[in-house]
Amino acid sequence: MTHSESSAATLYTSERLTKARTEAAAAGVQALLVSPGPDLRYLTGYQALPLERLTCLVVPVEGDPFLVVPRLEQPSAQASPAGGLGIEIVGFDETDDAYGLIARRLPAGTARFAVDDHMWAQKLLAFQAALPRAEAVLAGDVLAELRMRKTPAEVDALRRAGGAIDRVHRRIGEWLRPGRTEREVAKDIADAIVEAGHARMDFVIVGSGPNGASPHHEVSDRVIRTGDPVVIDIGGTTAEGYCSDSTRTYAVGEPPAAFRELYDVLLRAQTAQTEAVRPGITAEELDAVGRDIITDAGYGDHFIHRTGHGIGLDTHEEPYIVAGSKRPLEPGMAFSVEPGIYLPDTFGARIEDIAVCTESGGERLNLTGRDLVVLPG
Amino acid sequence: MTHSESSAATLYTSERLTKARTEAAAAGVQALLVSPGPDLRYLTGYQALPLERLTCLVVPVEGDPFLVVPRLEQPSAQASPAGGLGIEIVGFDETDDAYGLIARRLPAGTARFAVDDHMWAQKLLAFQAALPRAEAVLAGDVLAELRMRKTPAEVDALRRAGGAIDRVHRRIGEWLRPGRTEREVAKDIADAIVEAGHARMDFVIVGSGPNGASPHHEVSDRVIRTGDPVVIDIGGTTAEGYCSDSTRTYAVGEPPAAFRELYDVLLRAQTAQTEAVRPGITAEELDAVGRDIITDAGYGDHFIHRTGHGIGLDTHEEPYIVAGSKRPLEPGMAFSVEPGIYLPDTFGARIEDIAVCTESGGERLNLTGRDLVVLPG
Repeated sequence: MTHSESSAATLYTSERLTKARTEAAAAGVQALLVSPGPDLRYLTGYQALPLERLTCLVVPVEGDPFLVVPRLEQPSAQASPAGGLGIEIVGFDETDDAYGLIARRLPAGTARFAVDDHMWAQKLLAFQAALPRAEAVLAGDVLAELRMRKTPAEVDALRRAGGAIDRVHRRIGEWLRPGRTEREVAKDIADAIVEAGHARMDFVIVGSGPNGASPHHEVSDRVIRTGDPVVIDIGGTTAEGYCSDSTRTYAVGEPPAAFRELYDVLLRAQTAQTEAVRPGITAEELDAVGRDIITDAGYGDHFIHRTGHGIGLDTHEEPYIVAGSKRPLEPGMAFSVEPGIYLPDTFGARIEDIAVCTESGGERLNLTGRDLVVLPG
Repeated sequence: MTHSESSAATLYTSERLTKARTEAAAAGVQALLVSPGPDLRYLTGYQALPLERLTCLVVPVEGDPFLVVPRLEQPSAQASPAGGLGIEIVGFDETDDAYGLIARRLPAGTARFAVDDHMWAQKLLAFQAALPRAEAVLAGDVLAELRMRKTPAEVDALRRAGGAIDRVHRRIGEWLRPGRTEREVAKDIADAIVEAGHARMDFVIVGSGPNGASPHHEVSDRVIRTGDPVVIDIGGTTAEGYCSDSTRTYAVGEPPAAFRELYDVLLRAQTAQTEAVRPGITAEELDAVGRDIITDAGYGDHFIHRTGHGIGLDTHEEPYIVAGSKRPLEPGMAFSVEPGIYLPDTFGARIEDIAVCTESGGERLNLTGRDLVVLPG
């Protein structure tokens, strides 16, 4: 049995469907409707194509779950892990009304149905029309309760993803040097993300000099210069479906003294936050651990985003580590810890690790050094 | 000026916003709400990250369009072609209610608003809650009217995408041979799609032997054998944002006589369909041109999908070439012509070109030979 077959067997079990039904009942909905994407993959292992024809897992609170797919995708659905779950796979033809088909199979008197958070508006409005007396709500609230608590097999999968992206960060010195553009460096990194063991490159941010002060800057044709700080935030998805995401900030030659000062504050903040991870601390408390250090050092106005986001089959999912969230962390929750300090038009820095809350504290899944790496300039 | 700058200037003009407003008014909606994706890129040139924070272009029928973005993405939005359109870019902070912000800025008495077809359910339900007295409808109907009629600059962009995927089909003989798995062949093709001039590989279908009978089969670990027919359906997206999509069916060594017979019927059908493209023919008439040939030859039950889909910034968009669609083709419409014949558990074949309707007829954008290519077995 290959490694990925073994994980597929561990990851996709009908237990998830059973738990989803229980959570749905507790949330007062009569059915979950789940279209292609990470929620469908989580529940069934089926990586369906996100196309205009409806593919939809239906999980009624009363009765058996079933998967509705276009007839021409029925063989693919059957061949996926979904085929091993023992659920009915219902095909429909090009001119059939798939929404009506599902509406007729839902329990009479269905008053509330929940759809996956990323279901296309096209499909949601068609369900609202097919079920005019029922209220649509988000299944995300239900599914997030399952997905945010990772099983040991999932944490293993995230650990493998973290190792893969760490291998790329260890090689940054091969590509990042003065005279190259951000785009050229990003192209090399993108190739390396796949070589390092991801099935897919998801994003590469190379923010050099002043571009590092824009947290979601991706790449540009700016030529990297000696003395530039460079924010490199990268991630991919492994064949198992789990995501990686790690940021390190590099300097190409000796950076300005003001940058070193800023970086030291950031490193203290990020270190304190990763060490503060433990069951029971709330998301907003964890956010504050780093924010207070940055604010005390006088950079409070320049940490302009939340501390982090959950990660799993999606790069961004629950739990969000943000002011206002009183959610207590629990063992199995995995999320980024990525404070940043951004001086507009000057430079910026961010340090990001994925952390998992354990029974006794936290575990970092990214293990490359966090001290400022100064590359030859 | 580089080629891509020149195209960006030609492609993204405020004329599209003006036309969108006119179409929206004609459709009886008071505002269009457009989240990240091809619709947003079409209207503004902004390739926003599709994340959980709201990014939304608002096009009110009365008043000026504006773009709402998370504060930390404001610099990226400003630096994109959207920054050159002269529209207001409104940033919001991590704890602001972006939906309420938009609802308050819409004209009082907004009774119907239209959202892009792919807006996430999460965002649509939030807009429905923020605008409880207004009806949500799809903007796809409005935007499709614009997007399906390509300008000459867009047809040029699609022609370049078609040329790029043709370069990959011309190289299939380098990789497709007995003893290799579909997955191995697909990996080489995926790399070549990017090398050939796409910014992104979108999909690779390698359906060998019986797998060719499943139209949306992707790849498997099946080992290709001498005599196998192999359906190869591939596509990518160029840096300009336009998509390619072309299918050829190959044989690895001499295929069974029954396959040659089937392929000849399919080739006659696909040739007749590409030659039938002209202004005024309806989508269902064009579908029937090929379906009748296939049915008359006795394979009618085995052509189990529509003839094609429109293509542009999305691989699948309007117009769909399908039974029941009385839409007459117009100059500038671009779509796939891809009949297929599938014998379950045996083999299948599909031939696909992108065609553009012109003033006088049609133009094929894929120009590799359509005769069966028999590779060394």
